Amino acid sequence: MSDIFGFEPVNDGWEGELPEGWGVVGGAINGGYLLAVVTALAQTSVRQPDPVTVTGHFTGPGRAGPARVVTTVHKSGGGHSTVGATLVQEGRTVVAALATFGDLSVVPADDPTPAPSGSPHDAVAVTKARAPGTPDIVERLQLRIDADLAEFFTGAPAGRAEMAGWIHPSPETPPGVFGLLVMADVFPPPIFNLGHLGWTPTVELTVHCRRRPPRGWVRGEFRTRFMTGPYLEEDGELRDADGRLLAVSRQLALMPRRS
Amino acid sequence: MSDIFGFEPVNDGWEGELPEGWGVVGGAINGGYLLAVVTALAQTSVRQPDPVTVTGHFTGPGRAGPARVVTTVHKSGGGHSTVGATLVQEGRTVVAALATFGDLSVVPADDPTPAPSGSPHDAVAVTKARAPGTPDIVERLQLRIDADLAEFFTGAPAGRAEMAGWIHPSPETPPGVFGLLVMADVFPPPIFNLGHLGWTPTVELTVHCRRRPPRGWVRGEFRTRFMTGPYLEEDGELRDADGRLLAVSRQLALMPRRS
Repeated sequence: MSDIFGFEPVNDGWEGELPEGWGVVGGAINGGYLLAVVTALAQTSVRQPDPVTVTGHFTGPGRAGPARVVTTVHKSGGGHSTVGATLVQEGRTVVAALATFGDLSVVPADDPTPAPSGSPHDAVAVTKARAPGTPDIVERLQLRIDADLAEFFTGAPAGRAEMAGWIHPSPETPPGVFGLLVMADVFPPPIFNLGHLGWTPTVELTVHCRRRPPRGWVRGEFRTRFMTGPYLEEDGELRDADGRLLAVSRQLALMPRRS
Repeated sequence: MSDIFGFEPVNDGWEGELPEGWGVVGGAINGGYLLAVVTALAQTSVRQPDPVTVTGHFTGPGRAGPARVVTTVHKSGGGHSTVGATLVQEGRTVVAALATFGDLSVVPADDPTPAPSGSPHDAVAVTKARAPGTPDIVERLQLRIDADLAEFFTGAPAGRAEMAGWIHPSPETPPGVFGLLVMADVFPPPIFNLGHLGWTPTVELTVHCRRRPPRGWVRGEFRTRFMTGPYLEEDGELRDADGRLLAVSRQLALMPRRS
């Protein structure tokens, strides 16, 4: 993976440059992208190819530029291996992560879930041209929101805390199962459809990867059920175009501050 | 907390004894209990009192007996602090955890959720006398399963992957918000109600604590939606008797092996 993320091994970890273009609000790098980087580097320490469960705690904004990743193998061998990883910039931890790796090739292709209704072609493309203020990251992949959930762009939120649509990786998206970690964190927050617009910082993101993704469009459906004081969760599911489950995700995030 | 868990600070962490009586299948200590121990010890490093999101990756069975806990502060100060913690026995990591701490006193008491229907008094007590083979841990707190979901004990699973009921801490249960970590992992797996009985080992457990629990009965509702190859998730909600959300939980677990 080191050719993709531009990180190279050093004495006690990895050093590299976080690239431009994965920024969200205020230029902070997308949390899912950071999680993909540290997880892919952590994977190189173990035999199992696939992250089956990954958690990142986000302790400060990541910025384009130099970064160091330090990994610690907590368990190696057997069916699963577990590795801790931290990404540090300028002496400050940006993300602390834990990942357990397995082999998703054992997961059968069958799935009783029906294919999603609708298609990417009926959905609304999120582009900087169409939605001023949209972060860089939407230029790094194709993101489309279901038409009935896309009117928050124009000041008409759907009135329910849901966000759903389609996403298509680009050649710059982290490949394979690591791309699921990005896709789990790239849709606008579901509470935008309650009219709560603004930066909704992620405290922690956990993704369970269930299948390696196919090429092509991935379906994403996200919702928030509980807003308690400053906290909310965002629960997500990623599926292939036939409805097969690729990943479930949950993050703890903070309510946007009123400006 | 050290008087409760019997751990004492040493040079680079904590040492203590894991007690008898918190065992599940095969005598392995309940994962939620282990997570409560390491989280309570991690909390002593930071200013914020409450774990708002905690993840444990379980890398080997914990046993009653000597253990060492090592903590690493990833970020301290501001609104939230993040600490990593590992529990080691005989040189082997049993659980690796990450916890972010905040202050749940800021969460308002109001919640639009209706009170649960039913009551602990209509539910079926899980005791070793009634359900032979039930693990030790049920003697450490009072656990009651809704009557329509409790017949898996007698060979008549409900036919849906749900488990729900009531739990009442005992004086031996980790106190306050740390007790939520135990309560999130103590109900029988929801797939028991599909007839998949057997050890369902936890790979990873994440709990978002949303409110400090009151004294008294706590309502727990758990379900599994996706079984893919060896993997399943268990999603849980804990509420007080008035329906206020206390915590949401999710674990990645492994399907029971056919014996």
